[in-house]
Amino acid sequence: MAKIEITLGIDIGGTNTSLGFVTRAGTLVAESKMLTQALEPAVAYVAHLQAKINGMLEKIEETYELKGIGVGAPNANYYKGTVEYPPNLKWEGVTNLAEMIRHHYQVPVAITNDANAAAIGEMKFGAAKGMKHFIVITLGTGLGSGIVVDGKMVYGHDGFAGEVGHTIVHVNGRFCGCGRRGCLETYVSAGGICRTVFELLAERKEESDLRNVSFNQLTSKMISDAALHGDTIALEAFDLTGKMLGLKLADAVAHTSPEAIILFGGLSAAGELLLKPTQRYMEEYMLNIFKGKVQLLPSGLAAGNAAVLGASALIWNELDTQN
Amino acid sequence: MAKIEITLGIDIGGTNTSLGFVTRAGTLVAESKMLTQALEPAVAYVAHLQAKINGMLEKIEETYELKGIGVGAPNANYYKGTVEYPPNLKWEGVTNLAEMIRHHYQVPVAITNDANAAAIGEMKFGAAKGMKHFIVITLGTGLGSGIVVDGKMVYGHDGFAGEVGHTIVHVNGRFCGCGRRGCLETYVSAGGICRTVFELLAERKEESDLRNVSFNQLTSKMISDAALHGDTIALEAFDLTGKMLGLKLADAVAHTSPEAIILFGGLSAAGELLLKPTQRYMEEYMLNIFKGKVQLLPSGLAAGNAAVLGASALIWNELDTQN
Repeated sequence: MAKIEITLGIDIGGTNTSLGFVTRAGTLVAESKMLTQALEPAVAYVAHLQAKINGMLEKIEETYELKGIGVGAPNANYYKGTVEYPPNLKWEGVTNLAEMIRHHYQVPVAITNDANAAAIGEMKFGAAKGMKHFIVITLGTGLGSGIVVDGKMVYGHDGFAGEVGHTIVHVNGRFCGCGRRGCLETYVSAGGICRTVFELLAERKEESDLRNVSFNQLTSKMISDAALHGDTIALEAFDLTGKMLGLKLADAVAHTSPEAIILFGGLSAAGELLLKPTQRYMEEYMLNIFKGKVQLLPSGLAAGNAAVLGASALIWNELDTQN
Repeated sequence: MAKIEITLGIDIGGTNTSLGFVTRAGTLVAESKMLTQALEPAVAYVAHLQAKINGMLEKIEETYELKGIGVGAPNANYYKGTVEYPPNLKWEGVTNLAEMIRHHYQVPVAITNDANAAAIGEMKFGAAKGMKHFIVITLGTGLGSGIVVDGKMVYGHDGFAGEVGHTIVHVNGRFCGCGRRGCLETYVSAGGICRTVFELLAERKEESDLRNVSFNQLTSKMISDAALHGDTIALEAFDLTGKMLGLKLADAVAHTSPEAIILFGGLSAAGELLLKPTQRYMEEYMLNIFKGKVQLLPSGLAAGNAAVLGASALIWNELDTQN
């Protein structure tokens, strides 16, 4: 009997790496996790990864056939197959991760950053099924984005297209990890909304439970919880976050005119608290010809597996486009 | 002997329509102009246009064969072949111009807005030859843009992608013709730099020849001339214009990561006066990974014929992509 074709999706985060074998239809057949062990060199990481993959493969290879491997990783370059100077991984310089993995498995390997993998995941298995023009915004520690035009991921001239998180909201605004000031992600991200809360606590007089929390203790989850209980400061923080995001999404729409923008990841778990003001401000700031045309949607991928599904979708997309 | 293949490029402006027959290599074989006669209905316009084209064709049809017609027009929708509610033309509602022209000539007809036509013109015949990822910014009465990704024009979901002129620089900034406030084109365009000069005349104390000119008399050409003579206000106006443009081009780069941005049209005739500050601020505001990678170039098309060459390139591009 013919084996069922699967691909392996690997999501590399600063702390954990998640792996999963996924069918063409998007069913997760097996999954696992390992520490990324951020301080070790890339060679040691790949050896760990290989042992993990082999262990998983042994259990399923009678039924399934591995057709390719997709990887989502920070600072990944799709064109070159490399991970370049990743700020949270401590791998030195440029690592040709695609080549290192291909060497062990002799199947097609594709690699891109996590936001692009999320976008392809939404296109193959999630909220963007059947869409040709859309943008995925990932809201975690930072703000990532993946832009799809005519059914294809936009990688740009150098492979680094889709950095909406580093468009500028305020010249001379908040300091950003990228070394500049006023980037969107300093306002709109898990960390950004915490900074906004602290600004509001300084500026306003309203009572708030958040006045008892230190900067280092504060999380976006606490802000959502406070907002759901009617905390004025927390609600205002979501409104301001939605305003900044809506403003820059209106700008993004003016570039590629997508039919939808999909919010994905950590902070987007706040749901309506963030979606509603974002939608309202995006409409307000959008050029007339685009008004009422662009859907703002939550991710259509299961929260726990979204990144792995995205990485798998990346390589399914390659395999399906080549055939 | 086989006839030489040509296409017809038509550039429809509020005042004039320019026409030209162009070879595949970009040589202009014959050209003409007519009034757009803005107040007449579209049917009358097309009748005039047809008479004009027929007159030109008669003289050259022994040597040349018409293969297609490309049209650059305001508010043109590439997907539908329509011109929709053009603010400066007074054609009522939606005009299916492509169909009306095709009816008379039985050749492929394509239509898009003037900035997209300029972008395809640069790709076929100008400064973007051989490039796959670039953006063309047209600086005239307003600010238009055409974005090319992977060698293809980005039209977006509805055909209206590429409105960088209507990204927002300042919430609650200058009033824009589009009904909103703070759009890039209210700062960066022939009209925008005039507004900046008037702000500076109000704010500063420096002497300037521009203090003798009324708002209605002032042109961007006068500002260039004054700047070339060392006028402080005029030089400052170019610096501020370059700052706004550089800021929003850095944002545009973060979306599609082009290898070049090409400045085209009226205000770009100011040359180095505008290019230099724009380049400097774009580099300053760009994310590190893009710094030093994006060329800022003047148009590579002959100034007088650029729009007609662009419209012709649009249809050559269609013909070459289909074959």
